[in-house]
Amino acid sequence: MPVRGRSCTPGRGTVRRVGDTGGVNDPHAPGTRHFASDNYAGVHPEVLAAVAAANVGHTPAYGDDPWTERLQEVVRAHLGDAAVAYPVLNGTGANVVALQAMLPRWGAVVCAETAHVNTDENGAPERVGGLKLLTVPTPDGRLTPDLVARQAWGFGDVHRAQPGVVSLTQATELGTVYTPDAVRELCDQAHALGMRVHVDGSRIANAAAHLGLPLRALTTDCGVDVLSLGGTKNGLLLGEAVVVLDPGAVDGVEYLRKAGMQLASKMRFVSAQLVALYEGDLWLRSAQRANAMAARLRAGLDALGLDITLPTEANGVFVRLPRPVAAALRRTWRFYDWDVADGTVRLMCAFDTTEQDVDDLLAALGEALGGTAAS
Amino acid sequence: MPVRGRSCTPGRGTVRRVGDTGGVNDPHAPGTRHFASDNYAGVHPEVLAAVAAANVGHTPAYGDDPWTERLQEVVRAHLGDAAVAYPVLNGTGANVVALQAMLPRWGAVVCAETAHVNTDENGAPERVGGLKLLTVPTPDGRLTPDLVARQAWGFGDVHRAQPGVVSLTQATELGTVYTPDAVRELCDQAHALGMRVHVDGSRIANAAAHLGLPLRALTTDCGVDVLSLGGTKNGLLLGEAVVVLDPGAVDGVEYLRKAGMQLASKMRFVSAQLVALYEGDLWLRSAQRANAMAARLRAGLDALGLDITLPTEANGVFVRLPRPVAAALRRTWRFYDWDVADGTVRLMCAFDTTEQDVDDLLAALGEALGGTAAS
Amino acid sequence: MPVRGRSCTPGRGTVRRVGDTGGVNDPHAPGTRHFASDNYAGVHPEVLAAVAAANVGHTPAYGDDPWTERLQEVVRAHLGDAAVAYPVLNGTGANVVALQAMLPRWGAVVCAETAHVNTDENGAPERVGGLKLLTVPTPDGRLTPDLVARQAWGFGDVHRAQPGVVSLTQATELGTVYTPDAVRELCDQAHALGMRVHVDGSRIANAAAHLGLPLRALTTDCGVDVLSLGGTKNGLLLGEAVVVLDPGAVDGVEYLRKAGMQLASKMRFVSAQLVALYEGDLWLRSAQRANAMAARLRAGLDALGLDITLPTEANGVFVRLPRPVAAALRRTWRFYDWDVADGTVRLMCAFDTTEQDVDDLLAALGEALGGTAAS
Amino acid sequence: MPVRGRSCTPGRGTVRRVGDTGGVNDPHAPGTRHFASDNYAGVHPEVLAAVAAANVGHTPAYGDDPWTERLQEVVRAHLGDAAVAYPVLNGTGANVVALQAMLPRWGAVVCAETAHVNTDENGAPERVGGLKLLTVPTPDGRLTPDLVARQAWGFGDVHRAQPGVVSLTQATELGTVYTPDAVRELCDQAHALGMRVHVDGSRIANAAAHLGLPLRALTTDCGVDVLSLGGTKNGLLLGEAVVVLDPGAVDGVEYLRKAGMQLASKMRFVSAQLVALYEGDLWLRSAQRANAMAARLRAGLDALGLDITLPTEANGVFVRLPRPVAAALRRTWRFYDWDVADGTVRLMCAFDTTEQDVDDLLAALGEALGGTAAS
Repeated sequence: MPVRGRSCTPGRGTVRRVGDTGGVNDPHAPGTRHFASDNYAGVHPEVLAAVAAANVGHTPAYGDDPWTERLQEVVRAHLGDAAVAYPVLNGTGANVVALQAMLPRWGAVVCAETAHVNTDENGAPERVGGLKLLTVPTPDGRLTPDLVARQAWGFGDVHRAQPGVVSLTQATELGTVYTPDAVRELCDQAHALGMRVHVDGSRIANAAAHLGLPLRALTTDCGVDVLSLGGTKNGLLLGEAVVVLDPGAVDGVEYLRKAGMQLASKMRFVSAQLVALYEGDLWLRSAQRANAMAARLRAGLDALGLDITLPTEANGVFVRLPRPVAAALRRTWRFYDWDVADGTVRLMCAFDTTEQDVDDLLAALGEALGGTAAS
Repeated sequence: MPVRGRSCTPGRGTVRRVGDTGGVNDPHAPGTRHFASDNYAGVHPEVLAAVAAANVGHTPAYGDDPWTERLQEVVRAHLGDAAVAYPVLNGTGANVVALQAMLPRWGAVVCAETAHVNTDENGAPERVGGLKLLTVPTPDGRLTPDLVARQAWGFGDVHRAQPGVVSLTQATELGTVYTPDAVRELCDQAHALGMRVHVDGSRIANAAAHLGLPLRALTTDCGVDVLSLGGTKNGLLLGEAVVVLDPGAVDGVEYLRKAGMQLASKMRFVSAQLVALYEGDLWLRSAQRANAMAARLRAGLDALGLDITLPTEANGVFVRLPRPVAAALRRTWRFYDWDVADGTVRLMCAFDTTEQDVDDLLAALGEALGGTAAS
Repeated sequence: MPVRGRSCTPGRGTVRRVGDTGGVNDPHAPGTRHFASDNYAGVHPEVLAAVAAANVGHTPAYGDDPWTERLQEVVRAHLGDAAVAYPVLNGTGANVVALQAMLPRWGAVVCAETAHVNTDENGAPERVGGLKLLTVPTPDGRLTPDLVARQAWGFGDVHRAQPGVVSLTQATELGTVYTPDAVRELCDQAHALGMRVHVDGSRIANAAAHLGLPLRALTTDCGVDVLSLGGTKNGLLLGEAVVVLDPGAVDGVEYLRKAGMQLASKMRFVSAQLVALYEGDLWLRSAQRANAMAARLRAGLDALGLDITLPTEANGVFVRLPRPVAAALRRTWRFYDWDVADGTVRLMCAFDTTEQDVDDLLAALGEALGGTAAS
Repeated sequence: MPVRGRSCTPGRGTVRRVGDTGGVNDPHAPGTRHFASDNYAGVHPEVLAAVAAANVGHTPAYGDDPWTERLQEVVRAHLGDAAVAYPVLNGTGANVVALQAMLPRWGAVVCAETAHVNTDENGAPERVGGLKLLTVPTPDGRLTPDLVARQAWGFGDVHRAQPGVVSLTQATELGTVYTPDAVRELCDQAHALGMRVHVDGSRIANAAAHLGLPLRALTTDCGVDVLSLGGTKNGLLLGEAVVVLDPGAVDGVEYLRKAGMQLASKMRFVSAQLVALYEGDLWLRSAQRANAMAARLRAGLDALGLDITLPTEANGVFVRLPRPVAAALRRTWRFYDWDVADGTVRLMCAFDTTEQDVDDLLAALGEALGGTAAS
């Protein structure tokens, strides 16, 4: 079975891998909560209960069911009356279906070099969607109008893939968050150029929790056209949704979802999870906890005098660790190397990370650092 | 939300739609079990229990987990020591990932005109995989060597998409089943031509139940190279698997699964379901029930003197109904028109269909026919 | 280098190959005009002169040149004031660019099973365009409304690739020709269904010559939306054009031409050829000659009592030859097996085929038949 | 008809467009040789003569002809006994066919941000080939092992498009040339990583002319695996070739050429041109002239005290011009803005550019600068 990045080769770029665990680590040890990814966590009990509650005999397949209908109400309450949700199977699927629906065959997407669509989807946008990504390097994962302008040109030039969408990730892959003003500025720029805005919101709950704002304040109210609404990373078993905020921004979402192999036959079980997450405040509670644990972790790392390389706004912390220290921690926990060259690792907290989990890690870290200092 | 085929236009070909329900039918009425699709059924309780049991803290994502490991053992026990299972998200995904892994970019797939990959995947094989399908009409959904020969030619001709795979569906979309001899003959022919054999086994359990044979007797032992192993239609919440039987038949399944947007991050929850289905005899019990209900239904239809258009070997029955009779039934139940022109409808039974469900339908049918006869 | 179909395996379908030549034939013997394809012919001298005349210093690339501008006038004169021509590089390119421009990503094309796009483009429509072809068998290469209806259904069903274009070939791959009434009937049907009509006109000149009608009588006047206007097979060095007859039927032709690798940088040399062909009556003279030679050939074959399997309306003749007779002819000439099983071969005439060429073939054939009869 | 970049919007990136010509310029004025692109030039008379000479009756289509056979000898003489040439229709086609043949469906190409495949092919590699490009910024269009290392990592990580090819352009899009040592170093690095090397050689003749070396010294002898061998920009009417130097580096070139719509039916006319170019020293004479004219132009620009922004090694010169000066020149000549923001323009010389052409431009430039200085 594939372990993420297990065999990747160090280079000068961003390099992620589960570091060498020296044969000691048992990733399946019961009770250990890792810091590798919010995907390592399981299902929130309320979500699992909703799945069980939806298991009541027969219901029409492919979305013609009460749970998917209820999801529409829930999503409209969050994101405005024009919002329509199309449940899909995973985040890559949400992004690729959304971007295809927003672009002609000759379209291109302006995004950060670090965007998930660029780095972590094995070319699905290109291979499945025939999309061209026009990437720009960013200091912290966030696009700005100046950065977008470096790629948003060449309109009408048949030789150039036509920039049609700006895609931003909220929270970013580097743990930072766009303010509503920043999103609005990007939307205004894009719309003035005849382009549309997509938000990859696999961690949008973490962004909203950080800002203390409702979801629409980060999306609909800023002029965002289409949102990939996250689920899995915030406690679902499996499930995301393409949420169209401006119906004029898309064409054929339902056909593209099917042709893109993202249509669940027993869709009620995806919709019921999304309803459970977004109907009340579970989305917010879960994100708040993950963020709070990241903040606690950061505070502890700061206290240990470590070099934290990026702001900690959502649920990820990026810190440089001495190599033997990282190796020592890996006897118990999994986490990703972010840059092998400079020793940066990523520590992610999930909806179920506890204070004890964080404190245990910090304690082990302090001990390892002491050992290092002593040696 | 899309209702399958709701707006399709009658023609001379195979036409499926949920017929006009006259505004009376409530498809969400609790307690009604429909005959539209095995996808209308929910999750088998044992499967749901397995999902809950897998929800124990953190585990590595993307398949590096004990449930996915256990699935390998389960699949090997069924399908031989060389078998490797790659869990995916839906049946279209299983087929397209499998076929891409079996074919070069210039490859083509010989299949029945009625194959799911040809008729029900909105061109996913072509659009996602760039695959060419070379279809042949069949009398009952089953390929034969003579039928395959009508498309398996032109090897080395650069103008012709190169036939590289024969894909057959077991049980077929028309409710028929290939015998092991029939599968073996197709495999021998394909291999002699340098081609490979794929089985779309979204209902392979129903085929095995019909034949009273273990899964490997229909696949590995016949020379099948790659199997799309069904799950959802036989009682999973969501989940299928690409099972490679001959490792020499494929390349890059893991990469294609990711790039094809079929990789579950929290894969344990897909694998745990598949383990629950195939570890013991749940797959067989569920399929036997669905098949038995179809047989009971067929017997009842026969007794009513109706025209049953195809053999009833798996869990589907194809029968011609007078238009007013079909309309009357639709006040309670959903089922698909199969051919609007000649009045054929498809009645599918699921793992949870009961004798009472069948008898209720037959009773209503008898009544409606009586009314028709009387009028 | 590839010889068409050299290694194809006999089957029950249509099988084309250059038959076994027994090592005697020299396909490069100067002076021999073959009957394999109109692509075996060279460039018409008037076309070559036009290429030379266009070689006058610098001119802007990619179509911003006087020859491409002149082509627009020429095409408008033939096909109406709305017609716009986009020169491309080959017939497959014309078809795929046209069909992509006419269809959304979830679209499908209804065409004859024998259509060039289906049989002779190695899946380019599927692989480059992501298009689904919905094919129907035909008796003689011609679609009819009844045949189209077998695939033109399922509108709005997300599971089915959405039929959006009817593509017909004029003259067909089987040497037959659609009358204007037949084309109009197909256009009316398609438009009534919300579909569009594409004509693969790689041999449209031969159809027009057969009917004694101007090009627009077969296209614009019948309601055809987009035409692949042939060039190469009628005496160009290389070059075809996508001609849009109804601008509302397409989107993004220029972008698709570039992204589809069909944009000539020194486009003047393609346009100049097309101007030379269509400005005067060269297109007609050349097609008339090819057709006349096919008629002469057919008459001779008839006189020899041979079984001619299809009407001879354009420049191809399909005739069954005893195997030793075909082998004898192949000592001198190349031609394709059309169906290895029943001995049908295809004999194509080109713009430069002479009476002497035809008579030589007939004489050799008579001799070979005599030998066969005697044996 | 599209004018390259006519409507592109200024930005901070590389921006190319034909600047505003104030309605005065007549790009079709006979006798003017532009500096916009080597594609503005026509056909070399020796090439046109070769086309005419190949127009001798019938010959088998699709490459089974004496000219294509002769091309193999010519290419082997230049590039070694293993070299095989596949004529194609344009440069984008050559690159995409080559890269597809070198990579699995999950493969990626490391290339310079300024590479033609990235900037000027409207996403053809992504859209036609499903390829992912992993780009790196470069100071002067040239990759180095350090730059390649920024993207050549992540081998075995299913989330990352797998780097399989390094593609470099020779001469680069910025007018610079790789030395044989630089190419060898890149090949050694790539091969050590299990990757392959592709050279986009649409201007390889200009590179060889600059270095005074035979073609194989820049390719075969350095370990290059596949070459896109240029033709059109060096005096052909139309035509390039994929030349495979290591047969182990590719799979299915012939099928991919056909499916990629790059197979010429009357291939002899493409091959005859390539033979004419490469059989003797026409390729070298033409490139030497274009290079010499660029050197003359550069010397003149230097003498005028202008800011030349890149080395002048091939046939392009990049210089910053005051806006009114550029506008004045555009009354007579076409050339591209390279960066609207800083006033850089690109001036390209072709095989037919004369000393007089260069001197005329320089004189007009001197005059315009004088006017500017005076104002």
